[in-house]
Amino acid sequence: MKIAIINGPNINLLGKRETGIYGNRSFEDYFRELQEKYPAVNLYYFQSNIEGDLVNELQRVGYDYDGIILNPAAYTHTSVAIGDAVAAITTPVVEVHISNVHAREDFRKFSHVSAKSAGSIFGLGLKGYELALQFLMERNNHQSL
Amino acid sequence: MKIAIINGPNINLLGKRETGIYGNRSFEDYFRELQEKYPAVNLYYFQSNIEGDLVNELQRVGYDYDGIILNPAAYTHTSVAIGDAVAAITTPVVEVHISNVHAREDFRKFSHVSAKSAGSIFGLGLKGYELALQFLMERNNHQSL
Amino acid sequence: MKIAIINGPNINLLGKRETGIYGNRSFEDYFRELQEKYPAVNLYYFQSNIEGDLVNELQRVGYDYDGIILNPAAYTHTSVAIGDAVAAITTPVVEVHISNVHAREDFRKFSHVSAKSAGSIFGLGLKGYELALQFLMERNNHQSL
Amino acid sequence: MKIAIINGPNINLLGKRETGIYGNRSFEDYFRELQEKYPAVNLYYFQSNIEGDLVNELQRVGYDYDGIILNPAAYTHTSVAIGDAVAAITTPVVEVHISNVHAREDFRKFSHVSAKSAGSIFGLGLKGYELALQFLMERNNHQSL
Amino acid sequence: MKIAIINGPNINLLGKRETGIYGNRSFEDYFRELQEKYPAVNLYYFQSNIEGDLVNELQRVGYDYDGIILNPAAYTHTSVAIGDAVAAITTPVVEVHISNVHAREDFRKFSHVSAKSAGSIFGLGLKGYELALQFLMERNNHQSL
Amino acid sequence: MKIAIINGPNINLLGKRETGIYGNRSFEDYFRELQEKYPAVNLYYFQSNIEGDLVNELQRVGYDYDGIILNPAAYTHTSVAIGDAVAAITTPVVEVHISNVHAREDFRKFSHVSAKSAGSIFGLGLKGYELALQFLMERNNHQSL
Amino acid sequence: MKIAIINGPNINLLGKRETGIYGNRSFEDYFRELQEKYPAVNLYYFQSNIEGDLVNELQRVGYDYDGIILNPAAYTHTSVAIGDAVAAITTPVVEVHISNVHAREDFRKFSHVSAKSAGSIFGLGLKGYELALQFLMERNNHQSL
Amino acid sequence: MKIAIINGPNINLLGKRETGIYGNRSFEDYFRELQEKYPAVNLYYFQSNIEGDLVNELQRVGYDYDGIILNPAAYTHTSVAIGDAVAAITTPVVEVHISNVHAREDFRKFSHVSAKSAGSIFGLGLKGYELALQFLMERNNHQSL
Amino acid sequence: MKIAIINGPNINLLGKRETGIYGNRSFEDYFRELQEKYPAVNLYYFQSNIEGDLVNELQRVGYDYDGIILNPAAYTHTSVAIGDAVAAITTPVVEVHISNVHAREDFRKFSHVSAKSAGSIFGLGLKGYELALQFLMERNNHQSL
Amino acid sequence: MKIAIINGPNINLLGKRETGIYGNRSFEDYFRELQEKYPAVNLYYFQSNIEGDLVNELQRVGYDYDGIILNPAAYTHTSVAIGDAVAAITTPVVEVHISNVHAREDFRKFSHVSAKSAGSIFGLGLKGYELALQFLMERNNHQSL
Amino acid sequence: MKIAIINGPNINLLGKRETGIYGNRSFEDYFRELQEKYPAVNLYYFQSNIEGDLVNELQRVGYDYDGIILNPAAYTHTSVAIGDAVAAITTPVVEVHISNVHAREDFRKFSHVSAKSAGSIFGLGLKGYELALQFLMERNNHQSL
Amino acid sequence: MKIAIINGPNINLLGKRETGIYGNRSFEDYFRELQEKYPAVNLYYFQSNIEGDLVNELQRVGYDYDGIILNPAAYTHTSVAIGDAVAAITTPVVEVHISNVHAREDFRKFSHVSAKSAGSIFGLGLKGYELALQFLMERNNHQSL
Repeated sequence: MKIAIINGPNINLLGKRETGIYGNRSFEDYFRELQEKYPAVNLYYFQSNIEGDLVNELQRVGYDYDGIILNPAAYTHTSVAIGDAVAAITTPVVEVHISNVHAREDFRKFSHVSAKSAGSIFGLGLKGYELALQFLMERNNHQSL
Repeated sequence: MKIAIINGPNINLLGKRETGIYGNRSFEDYFRELQEKYPAVNLYYFQSNIEGDLVNELQRVGYDYDGIILNPAAYTHTSVAIGDAVAAITTPVVEVHISNVHAREDFRKFSHVSAKSAGSIFGLGLKGYELALQFLMERNNHQSL
Repeated sequence: MKIAIINGPNINLLGKRETGIYGNRSFEDYFRELQEKYPAVNLYYFQSNIEGDLVNELQRVGYDYDGIILNPAAYTHTSVAIGDAVAAITTPVVEVHISNVHAREDFRKFSHVSAKSAGSIFGLGLKGYELALQFLMERNNHQSL
Repeated sequence: MKIAIINGPNINLLGKRETGIYGNRSFEDYFRELQEKYPAVNLYYFQSNIEGDLVNELQRVGYDYDGIILNPAAYTHTSVAIGDAVAAITTPVVEVHISNVHAREDFRKFSHVSAKSAGSIFGLGLKGYELALQFLMERNNHQSL
Repeated sequence: MKIAIINGPNINLLGKRETGIYGNRSFEDYFRELQEKYPAVNLYYFQSNIEGDLVNELQRVGYDYDGIILNPAAYTHTSVAIGDAVAAITTPVVEVHISNVHAREDFRKFSHVSAKSAGSIFGLGLKGYELALQFLMERNNHQSL
Repeated sequence: MKIAIINGPNINLLGKRETGIYGNRSFEDYFRELQEKYPAVNLYYFQSNIEGDLVNELQRVGYDYDGIILNPAAYTHTSVAIGDAVAAITTPVVEVHISNVHAREDFRKFSHVSAKSAGSIFGLGLKGYELALQFLMERNNHQSL
Repeated sequence: MKIAIINGPNINLLGKRETGIYGNRSFEDYFRELQEKYPAVNLYYFQSNIEGDLVNELQRVGYDYDGIILNPAAYTHTSVAIGDAVAAITTPVVEVHISNVHAREDFRKFSHVSAKSAGSIFGLGLKGYELALQFLMERNNHQSL
Repeated sequence: MKIAIINGPNINLLGKRETGIYGNRSFEDYFRELQEKYPAVNLYYFQSNIEGDLVNELQRVGYDYDGIILNPAAYTHTSVAIGDAVAAITTPVVEVHISNVHAREDFRKFSHVSAKSAGSIFGLGLKGYELALQFLMERNNHQSL
Repeated sequence: MKIAIINGPNINLLGKRETGIYGNRSFEDYFRELQEKYPAVNLYYFQSNIEGDLVNELQRVGYDYDGIILNPAAYTHTSVAIGDAVAAITTPVVEVHISNVHAREDFRKFSHVSAKSAGSIFGLGLKGYELALQFLMERNNHQSL
Repeated sequence: MKIAIINGPNINLLGKRETGIYGNRSFEDYFRELQEKYPAVNLYYFQSNIEGDLVNELQRVGYDYDGIILNPAAYTHTSVAIGDAVAAITTPVVEVHISNVHAREDFRKFSHVSAKSAGSIFGLGLKGYELALQFLMERNNHQSL
Repeated sequence: MKIAIINGPNINLLGKRETGIYGNRSFEDYFRELQEKYPAVNLYYFQSNIEGDLVNELQRVGYDYDGIILNPAAYTHTSVAIGDAVAAITTPVVEVHISNVHAREDFRKFSHVSAKSAGSIFGLGLKGYELALQFLMERNNHQSL
Repeated sequence: MKIAIINGPNINLLGKRETGIYGNRSFEDYFRELQEKYPAVNLYYFQSNIEGDLVNELQRVGYDYDGIILNPAAYTHTSVAIGDAVAAITTPVVEVHISNVHAREDFRKFSHVSAKSAGSIFGLGLKGYELALQFLMERNNHQSL
C-alpha cells in the first residue's frame, strides 16, 4: 500500500522557527516516526514552496498511489490549479491543516481543495496526518468500521 | 476517561431514511460498535433537534468530561449560542461532520463552531467520530505522537 | 387522506393581538372551519415556537402523511435545520405565508424552505392554507389539471 | 366577472419543447380547460415576449378587470417597468410561477413583482393559475373564508 | 431649433391614475403648455413602454436634433441598451426624473443613463422638463451665463 | 408594578465559569440584590437556552407586565422569532447586554431586537439591568425627568 | 424673497485652478452676474471648507429663507451631519453639482443629501444654480406650470 | 445548411457612427461579403433593438436551423429572457461580441447568454462572426479537426 | 467629581424644531435640571457641529475628568477621528443616543465610537444621559451595583 | 510567421484522464495535426504547471513572435502576474479556453487575462485554438476579412 | 526650498499619551530636530483636528511650496474633501503614516489620498517624514538617483 | 551589514520595455549605482517570476540578513504564501512598489505583504528602494531619528 504526503509552502520551516512554541521537531523527524509506527505502509514525502511543483507531484502520484494526504498550506486559499489537479486525479485525497485555520484571518476560511477532496482535518496538529492515514488505510481495506 | 458524543438535528434519521444510500445502520448501532471497540472509554451519547437542548448538554458535560465530539449538523451554520457554549466550557471539543459540507450549498461553508473548537473533521463519514475519539484519547494520555 | 398543518413561532398570537387589523378569529377557529369544509380529509394541526419541535414534528408526520402545509414563520429565514428536515422527509410540503413577506424587511426575502418544498404561497392570507390543501388533494388524486 | 391571465417570455413554448417532461399540452390547451371548468368567469389570455407589451397590457386591463394572474417569467427578475405597472394599476394582481424558481439560479430568487402584488404562488405547476383564480373569485365575492 | 422629449414606461398614466396626488393633467396637456410657452422651439414628444422603441427613437432623433430631454423612467435602472444609445448619438441629452428617485427604493439610485448624459435633474416635478429645455436652449445659443 | 427580566443562552453560566474575571456572583445572586434594592417593584426572572422558550415567555408576560428587560444573548444576532415576539407584544422592552458587543466579532454588531425595542444598553455590565429598570420605573410613573 | 447659495469644500478654487478648462471666472464673479440678472431676489452666498460650518449655516438660514441652493461638494458623499441638517430645517433645499458626479469615481454616486432635498441638478455646470433658482422662485410664487 | 446571425441593440449604427474609428462599412455590407465567401451556406440576418423581438426570432429559427451566431449586445448583461430562450431552443448558439467587453465597464463582464451557449468569442472584431461560422460548419460536418 | 457631556451636530436644534414632537425644552434646559438634581457632580456641557471641535474637546477633558457622556450624533457613523480620540484618552466614555438609531436608516447602525467606549445607551430619550451619569458615578465610587 | 501556443496547468493531462469523455488524443497529438494543416506557420508549443514559467515564456516569445495563443487554465482566474506579462509584451495574444468556463463555478467567470488580450474564445473545444490561429494569420496579413 | 508638513487629528497627542510606548518626544520636538538636520530647507509645520482646516491649509501652501508631506491620520479613510484638495493643488504631495495602517482595522486600509499623491510611506515611524523629505529634495533638484 | 533586495515578476523587463517612458536603465544598472553609493553595505539582489522561488529566497536570507527590501510586484495582491514567509522570518522587511498601486486597478489596493512588513513605500519610483535602505541602515544603527 502506497501513501503520499504532500506539503505546501513554509512547512519546511517547521522545527526551525519559533521552536519555543512548536518544538524543535521538523516534519522530516515526524515523518520518520510515522514510517516506524506504520511499517506496512509505503510512505512517501514531498514538500515544495512552488505551486506548480505541487501540481506536478499530484499528477505524478495521483493515479497509482492508494491515497494522498495533502496540506496545501498557503495555496489552500488561492490555488485553483491545485484544486483542479485534485479533481482530475483518481487517488483519494485527504486535506490536512496543522493549525485551526478557521480561527485565523478571514481569507483562510475558504479552501479551493476541500470540495474536491474526500474530506478534511483541521487544527488537530501533526496528529491530523496520522488520522488521515488511518482513514486511507481503512478505506483501502474496504473495512467500513 | 469520559467522552461525550453530541449530535444535532436530523441525525436521528440516519439508517431510517435513504437506506439505499446510507445503509440501514442507525447512529445508535454505530455507537454500540464504538463502545465495544473502545471498552476502556466511558462513552456517552446525546442527540437533539432543539438548539437550546444542545447548549444545555454542552454545559452539563463541559466541565468534567475529558472530551466532546460535537456534530452540530444544521446548527453549525446558524447557531451563535452553540458557538458561545463551546467557547465557555473547558472540555476540549472536536467538531465532526459526516458529509463534506464544503461540497454542498454555500451557506454550509461557514461554521460558528470551528474557530471555538480544538479542531474539525469533515467528510470522512462515520469514521470521523472514531478519529476524533483517538485524538481525544491521545491528548488525554499526554502522548504527543 | 391525512394532511398536517404545521405553524411556526408567534402564529399562536393570531386573533389575540392587533385584533383591529387581523380580526378576532384565532388559527384554531380557522382550522375548525377548514375541517368542516373538507370532512373527507383527516386534518391535523400543530404549532410551536421552538425550532427543534418543528423539526421533530416534520420527522414524525413526514413519512406516512399525504401532505404537509408548513408555515415556518420567522424560522423561514434562519433555519437550516427545518430546511434539512423538509429535504429529508418524503411527504410533499407546501410552504404558506399569510402576509406578503416580500413586501417587508429584506431579511424576509430569503427562505431556507422554498427550494426544498414542492411550492410556496405568499400573501394570500389564511386562504393560502386552503389553496395549499386543494393542491395536495389534487396531487393525491393523481388529477393533473 | 373578468379575469386576465398575462404570461411573459418563452411560455409560448410550453407543450412544444421538452414534451417528454412537460407533456404536449400547450398553455392555450390548458386555458381552454380552465374556461370550461369556470364558465361563470370571463377569462382573457395574453402572452408576449416583449417587456413593454406586458406593461401595455397591464395598463389596459388594470383598471376595470376584477383580477390579473401574472406570470412575468424571465422579466420577473429584471423588470422595474412591470413592477411599476403592477403598482400603478388598481386591479389586484396574483403572481404565479409554474416552476419553483427558488430551486434554480440565484438571480431567480428576486422578484420585482412580488412586493407589488397581492400575493404569489410558486412551483405548484399549472395548478397555480387555478388556485390564483379561486383566490380572486373569493376576494371578489367578499367572502373571507 | 428642434428639441425632443422622450418618456419611458408608465408615464402615459400621468393624469389618469392617482389624480388626487398628481392632479388630472396628463403629460400631453403639460406638453401643449410647454409648446405655447416656448413657440420658438420646435418641440417633439414621444413615449413608449417598450425599451427597444426608446432605443429606436433615440437613434432616429439623435443626430440632427439640437437636444433631447430623456426620462427613461423604470428603464433608467436596468437598461444598458438605452445607456449605449445615449453614448452613441451626438445630440446632447439631459436626463429628467419627475420624482426624487433617491428617496425611493435602493435599486432606483443607480442610473445607466446619468454618466452618458450631459447632466440630470431629479425630483423637481414637471418643472424639471422646462429647466432642461432652458439649459439646452442656452447651450444652443452659445450663451455661457 | 411588575417587571420581568428575561435572559438568553449561556447567561446561566455567570458566576460559575471564569470566576477569576467575572467574580463568583451568579445572576441569581445579582437578582436577589436587585429585589432588595427595589422592594416596590414586583421583579420576575426567567432564563432559558432555548430560543422558543424565550418566545413563549415574552408572549406570556408581554401583555400585562409593565416592562421587560431582555438580554437575548447569542440569539440577539440570529433570532427573527424573538424580534417578531418583541414587535407583537405591547409591554415596553429594553434590550440589555452585559458586555460591549460592538467590541467583539462582526456578527455581534447586528441585533434583531434593537429596532423593535424601546431602547438598548450595551457594555455597562450588570449595572445595565438596573439602569433599564430605572427607565421603566420612570416611564411607568409618567415622570419625564 | 431671500435665497441662500451654500457651497462646500474646494469650490473657492474655481477660477483659480485649471483655468484652461474652467475659465478664469470665480464663483464670486458668477454670483455677481446672478445678482444682476435677478435683482428682485435677495441672494446670499456662503462657502466653507469645514463640514460643521456648513451645518451651522444651514441651521441659521434654514427657517426664514425662501430657499437654499446647496452644493455640498465632497461632503455630499460622506456627511450624515449635513444630510441631517437638511432634513431638520424647513426651507426647501435644491442640491446642485457643477460636474456630472455620476461619470466620476464610484464613491461619488451616493449622496447623503439627495433624499432629504426637494430635488437635485447634476452636471449642467454653473447654469445648474440658475435653474435651481428658477425652480425656487416659481415654487415661491405658487405657480405650478 | 442554414445559419442565422442575430444582432442586438445599436449594432444597426455600425458604419454610420464614429466612422473615423469603425470605418464606413455597415454590418449589412459585411454580411454580404460573408455570403459571397461562403456560398454553400444559407445565411440569414436579423437585427432588432427590442429584447422581445430577439426572443421571438430565437424561437422561430431555434429548432430547424443548423446554427445561430448571436450578438445580444447590451442585452447580454441584463436579459434573462434571451438567456432562457437560448437554453430552450435546440439549435447550437455561438455568442459573439465585436469589442472586448472585458476591457470595458464592470457590468459588461457578466453575460446571461454565455453559460447557455456552446461557446463565446470576444473582441476579435467582425472576424469573430466568421470564426463562429467555421465552428458551426465543422460541427455540422461532424468533423472534429 | 467632574463629568462632561459632549453633544454633536444638530442637537443644538432640540426644542427649537419639531416642538410638536420633541416638546419645547432645549438641551440647555435639560442640562440645568440635571445640574439641580445632581448638585454633588461638577457637570460641564459642550456642543459643536464641527467634527474637529469635538476631537479638540475630547482631548481637553479626556485626561482629568472622571467621565464623559458623548453623543456624537451624525458623526457617530462617519468619524474615525472621534473614534480615535475616544481610544486615545483615559477618561471613561459612555455613548448616548436620544433616538433608537437601530430603527432608522442602515448607515446609522454602525458606530465608530461604540467599540472604543465603556458602553452605549440607545433610544431611551434624554433619560439616557441621566442613566449614563449614574453609571459613571457608581463606577467612580468603586461600588459594583 | 511564428505563432506560440502556451498552455497552463493540468492541460498536460488531456488524453490521459477521463478518456471516455475527452477521447485519448493528447494536446501533443492535436498540436501535430495543427502543424500539418498549417505548414506555412512556424508553430511552437509550451506547457507548464508553474505560474512563473508561463510568465518567463510569455516574456521570451512576447517581442518577436507574430502571435500568442494562451490558455492560462486555472491561472486565468488568479494570476495578476500573467495578466501583467500579457500587458507588457508587444505580441498580440488571443486567450483560449477549451471548456465553457462561464458554465462552471463562479470563480471561473473572472479572467485576469481577457482585458489585456486582443480577444478571447471560450467553450469551442480544441477548435478554439485553430480559430485563434486563423485570426492571428489574417491579422498578420493585414487582410481585414 | 519650502516644504510643508501637515498633520491631521490626534497627532498633537504624540509624546503626551502612552509615553511608555511612544516615548515622550512630541511631534514639535521631532520637527525641531528635522529643522536642525536640514538647515537648507525652509520647513513649515501645521496640525489641526478639523478636516476643513486641513483643506484650507493645503489650498494655501499648495501652489507655491516645493512639496507637502501630509499625514491625514483618521481623515485618510473618510475625507473626500482632502482627497479633492490634494488633486486640485499643484505642489507634489507625499502621504506619510507613522504606524502600519494595513495591520490595523479593515476601514484603515482604504485611503482617499493615496491615489492623488505622488506616493506613500506607511509604518516606518517618524523616520517616514524624513524619507519623504529626501524624496522631495531630490525631486526638486531634478536628480533622478 | 547585509541587505537583500528581492523583486517579483516582470520587474526583469525594466529598461527593456516601454523605454520611452521608463528610460533604458535596467534594475541591474540601478542596483550597481546603489552598490557604489552605499559601499559600506553588503547588497544582494534576487529576482524571479516564480512565486515559490521568492518564498525560497525569503526563507534563505530571512534569518541572518539585517534587512530585506521586497517588491513582490503582481504577487503582492495574490500570494498568501509570500505573506506567510514574511511573517515567519525574523529579518525586518520593507515593502517597496515603484508605481503608485493605489492609482491603478482596484485589485492592486490589497497587499498580502503590508500587514506583515515593518512598513511600505509606494509610488516613489526607484528612489523608494534607496529610502527603504536608509530606513534599514538607521534601524540597524539603533539611531532613532
